Amino acid sequence: MNQLSQWRPDMNDPLPLYQQIEAYIIAKIKSGEWTQGMKLPSQRVLAKQFGVNRSTIVAAMDRLVSAGMLEGNSGGGTRVAGDGEVDDLTLHDSEGIQPSSSPRKHWNDYVEEGMHYPNLPLVQTINRMEFAPHMIRLGTGELSPSLLPEQSMRHLFSEIASSLDTVPLSYEEPLGSLQLRRELCLELGRRGINASPSNVLVVSGALQAFQLISAGLLERQSTILLEKPSYLYSIHAFQSAGVRLAGVPMDAEGLQASALARLKQLRQAVLLYTNPTYHNPTGIVMSEARRTRLMQVCDQIGLPILEDGAYEELWLDHRPPAALKARDTSGQVLYVGTLSKIVSPGLRIGWIVGSERVIERLADIKMQTDYGSSSVSQLMAYHWLHSGYHQRHMEQLREQLRIRRDTMLELLQQDWHDIATWQKPTGGFYIWVTLTGGCSLNKLFDRALSAGILLNVGTLYDRGASRQLRLSYAYAPIEEMKFAMGKLAELIRMQG
Amino acid sequence: MNQLSQWRPDMNDPLPLYQQIEAYIIAKIKSGEWTQGMKLPSQRVLAKQFGVNRSTIVAAMDRLVSAGMLEGNSGGGTRVAGDGEVDDLTLHDSEGIQPSSSPRKHWNDYVEEGMHYPNLPLVQTINRMEFAPHMIRLGTGELSPSLLPEQSMRHLFSEIASSLDTVPLSYEEPLGSLQLRRELCLELGRRGINASPSNVLVVSGALQAFQLISAGLLERQSTILLEKPSYLYSIHAFQSAGVRLAGVPMDAEGLQASALARLKQLRQAVLLYTNPTYHNPTGIVMSEARRTRLMQVCDQIGLPILEDGAYEELWLDHRPPAALKARDTSGQVLYVGTLSKIVSPGLRIGWIVGSERVIERLADIKMQTDYGSSSVSQLMAYHWLHSGYHQRHMEQLREQLRIRRDTMLELLQQDWHDIATWQKPTGGFYIWVTLTGGCSLNKLFDRALSAGILLNVGTLYDRGASRQLRLSYAYAPIEEMKFAMGKLAELIRMQG
Repeated sequence: MNQLSQWRPDMNDPLPLYQQIEAYIIAKIKSGEWTQGMKLPSQRVLAKQFGVNRSTIVAAMDRLVSAGMLEGNSGGGTRVAGDGEVDDLTLHDSEGIQPSSSPRKHWNDYVEEGMHYPNLPLVQTINRMEFAPHMIRLGTGELSPSLLPEQSMRHLFSEIASSLDTVPLSYEEPLGSLQLRRELCLELGRRGINASPSNVLVVSGALQAFQLISAGLLERQSTILLEKPSYLYSIHAFQSAGVRLAGVPMDAEGLQASALARLKQLRQAVLLYTNPTYHNPTGIVMSEARRTRLMQVCDQIGLPILEDGAYEELWLDHRPPAALKARDTSGQVLYVGTLSKIVSPGLRIGWIVGSERVIERLADIKMQTDYGSSSVSQLMAYHWLHSGYHQRHMEQLREQLRIRRDTMLELLQQDWHDIATWQKPTGGFYIWVTLTGGCSLNKLFDRALSAGILLNVGTLYDRGASRQLRLSYAYAPIEEMKFAMGKLAELIRMQG
Repeated sequence: MNQLSQWRPDMNDPLPLYQQIEAYIIAKIKSGEWTQGMKLPSQRVLAKQFGVNRSTIVAAMDRLVSAGMLEGNSGGGTRVAGDGEVDDLTLHDSEGIQPSSSPRKHWNDYVEEGMHYPNLPLVQTINRMEFAPHMIRLGTGELSPSLLPEQSMRHLFSEIASSLDTVPLSYEEPLGSLQLRRELCLELGRRGINASPSNVLVVSGALQAFQLISAGLLERQSTILLEKPSYLYSIHAFQSAGVRLAGVPMDAEGLQASALARLKQLRQAVLLYTNPTYHNPTGIVMSEARRTRLMQVCDQIGLPILEDGAYEELWLDHRPPAALKARDTSGQVLYVGTLSKIVSPGLRIGWIVGSERVIERLADIKMQTDYGSSSVSQLMAYHWLHSGYHQRHMEQLREQLRIRRDTMLELLQQDWHDIATWQKPTGGFYIWVTLTGGCSLNKLFDRALSAGILLNVGTLYDRGASRQLRLSYAYAPIEEMKFAMGKLAELIRMQG
């Protein structure tokens, strides 16, 4: 099996590594190169030869075992079981009742099944470690608990208890609470986006919006274009629906609109996902000129746009250019917003804005998914927006985030000036830092973790971003941020 | 287009009515709210909604057709034609940007795409008509608004406002709020189900539980066995994930366990879904003996069980036999429960109980789907269960449901005794009625709808149940129930 050493999965291919490995093994078996009974090298050896984590090998093998192409044995080795074709002869043994081909008999046997990908192992580690006590979370894309409007929400509970409104305990309408949608339309109107309540679908956060769009509007095997890097690479919102991602290069003004026509044709892409304002993870704001150009190009080549406006309200120095949706006169843009980044992730309230037909289709899928979002959350969100809490909160929040951003920039200037480069973000949560030395991100992640610091490494957002970190100034307390930035600089220097 | 009803031309405006209407429609089209291809309501409907003569509508539309913004068709319908701008795509054909091979260029073109099935047309009609005013909903599987604990929930808001607990505004843990899971374990314990918080995943209602199970544990093209009839046939929770359903016949004691071994082999089924207690739609309670037998058979043939316990607490005469999950010693049963049928569908709180490995896998998918359920809903649910509201509410609710059930049984006895047969349910919401004559369900549905009565016909739950109706005594006010049952008997006799 020395030919193994010659092949490695392509890190730039949007297909997940374990699927590339799965496809490689299938090809070997189907072509007859690997024959029934042949023993495979150990998972450890394979991981090394393919240059991937062992969990990636496990993921690929589990799927091939399920497909009947590989089989494990009690000694831990794995052999080629067959080419996955059903052998018709066995089906007709003994009076038509054949033994089940499936060895799965217990719920536990199903854990490796299912169409939905598990989270990336690194993401699973991060998700788990986020709940570990005393961990300094230096990359977390959430507001620090101290920035959440706990007191105001308590006042809201009290106001709701004494108001004359009914407490909505039934299902809401398919599009969501009408009073909330009206309030959202006012809010969107202030940002130049014209919408009626029938153009708005209330969802349980932006992630669910992407799920509904991929399940409701896209075919399996569709390809969508998106910024490279993008936080969509770190989650499986689209990939689990069989949708492929193809990256569009960025510069300081945002994604390169000039690359779209070619990429659309090359990849037969069906839509463009973009996060033009305080981009996650780079913090870049798409310029006014680029927005105009992007709208023109997408209109010309017939490429619908999915705009992620999650960070839009988090401007720190000056308001950003108007959203793409504010420039949309033909229904070319589907816009997604959320309260998660600005008020409370726990409320699970987001929205999709689009043409009535599209919104109706998505509402139908939403009804089939969870029968609508929590009516209590919708009630809270309505009162929050309606009663002026939101405006006051945003002013205080911007003030606090400004202090945090400036602190982190000072720490970078002080401790990191000779080991990294970065740009000053004008809003959002993130500073995208490029390390100048030859430091291994995997090692840095592990060593930081041992020192009690949780990092979001660049490779989560772009497999090629092997020298980048997404730092967040939104989450960790300022004192912890100070300690962690110094400690990290030490660790980087040790490796460098 | 429900926002139409909110706008009317201003009778005091010096601008002629037809020009106001024209301007209104132009604004809708230019802003992208009404997009190309969208069908407008009929002239008659528009005239009524705008409060003008039909000739005024005709005048406005004629001008818009001339301007190229609307187009009529021979059938009399009118659609949005465009925004009146020149399409400059053609200008660039010769400049290296070729037209895409894909005919889809606009979000509206995607409405027919997507893997997720739309709801059945009949279900869509029912969903829509449920929000029509003055409709008597005689089949709706929800508590009547008058049965929802509105006052108690208002008290809860007040208690939460003044409590010392923090209001949880951050994301909850992947499995859901720990205090809620602890409370659920106590509640489950009272029903004989032993579970630790790590065996419980909080979800946004039972429907989401099924979505997570089909996405997370099953392969596409898997087949699951289930009761025939079953309410799962009326939704697409499993089918949209490519999972097939195969019906198991029922008798008065529940699904026929003796049929399982053969069906499992024949259909290569991977699990059994069952709703053993106050089954939806038949109301049947699986007997004690059948439960014992079912557990034995499934253990022998290696068939995991997905148990739907949504109606379990809604016993009216005496407690039902213990859940299958209470008999499970090996992790063979995955159990789903919900607050939707007993407290409030709007809260969107349900739970899955299973082995830790399975619960962890489902939690990972849940995190990728919507980052967890609303923290405010989880807080409300915790306090609701913890503070004794739940027990008091359930006693009152059973009392009210008993009255409603007995009323409906009396009405059946009085008006339907010669046209139908039925069994008295001992809990839950439903009476499964079989019509004895040769009445067409489709016609009956339409005629009832014209008379203001919304029906859930048997074919929603079993294609062969062409003489059955699922009546619900939970939703319609008693006076409406009386009127509707008499009216329906009339309609059935007319057809019979």
